[in-house]
Amino acid sequence: MTARFTVLALLSTAYSASFAGQIEDQIRFRQSAYSFAAWNLAKIKNQVQHPDTFNKEQVGAAASAIAAIAGSDLNSLYGPGTEQGVGWQKTRVKPDYFQKPDEVKKLAEDFRKESLELVKLASGGDVAAVKTQFGKLSQTCKSCHDSFRLKDVEE
Amino acid sequence: MTARFTVLALLSTAYSASFAGQIEDQIRFRQSAYSFAAWNLAKIKNQVQHPDTFNKEQVGAAASAIAAIAGSDLNSLYGPGTEQGVGWQKTRVKPDYFQKPDEVKKLAEDFRKESLELVKLASGGDVAAVKTQFGKLSQTCKSCHDSFRLKDVEE
Repeated sequence: MTARFTVLALLSTAYSASFAGQIEDQIRFRQSAYSFAAWNLAKIKNQVQHPDTFNKEQVGAAASAIAAIAGSDLNSLYGPGTEQGVGWQKTRVKPDYFQKPDEVKKLAEDFRKESLELVKLASGGDVAAVKTQFGKLSQTCKSCHDSFRLKDVEE
Repeated sequence: MTARFTVLALLSTAYSASFAGQIEDQIRFRQSAYSFAAWNLAKIKNQVQHPDTFNKEQVGAAASAIAAIAGSDLNSLYGPGTEQGVGWQKTRVKPDYFQKPDEVKKLAEDFRKESLELVKLASGGDVAAVKTQFGKLSQTCKSCHDSFRLKDVEE
């Protein structure tokens, strides 16, 4: 299928009750989720590294975006057939992802828990506390990458 | 730059206080945001079209994701130089986007307002009300596409 994707094309299609989408769509959606998370992580990192720029509303909004991503059931985008394939780019998921559902679930819960804690701390405006929690959240990203993401793939 | 993108690469780079990122990154991040929104819109559409599958927690989570996207200052991803370029794919933004900031702002506020209303209604569990509000939210997407997105571009 074409790399182009439009909301209208998506919304004009009929879906099964257990909507997940075509293989390419699932891979593209999950890559989009992580990329959107990365942007929001970068915004927070920038502010905790430059405390004079710290804005608790902006950090809270970014943390809320990450928490929403973490709470959006990303695992449903790893359906049958998505072990390999191309979304925006070739997937880097390791076969282990599909063989260790308990570990996946635990890491996903850690991601969600630490992102929710960051949302809570952001509203308090204590930069040091936000920075520490940001480190914990980033660690959950890294743990999942170490376990389930290939370092790189051939295009 | 390569189409590959990793959180670690992003997080290991120093950023200015007004972080936005390179042109290609900005375009890729905004495309990721819209694509992630599209997935969440599709999940809600599927449930309101099949009321027997309606799950207010799932619809609420999807609506919250859309509201977080709408509240994430996407406009900051339309920095100088992003009128043209390639993120995940060639941008389809129209020149008008950069010439009509008041209209952009109004449409962005509509998007945010209607998504927050959907979050509120989802928790009530009234499928008909959620369906109506989903229509209003979708209309804000369409209005922005009509005004500011090219129907298609040559690759």
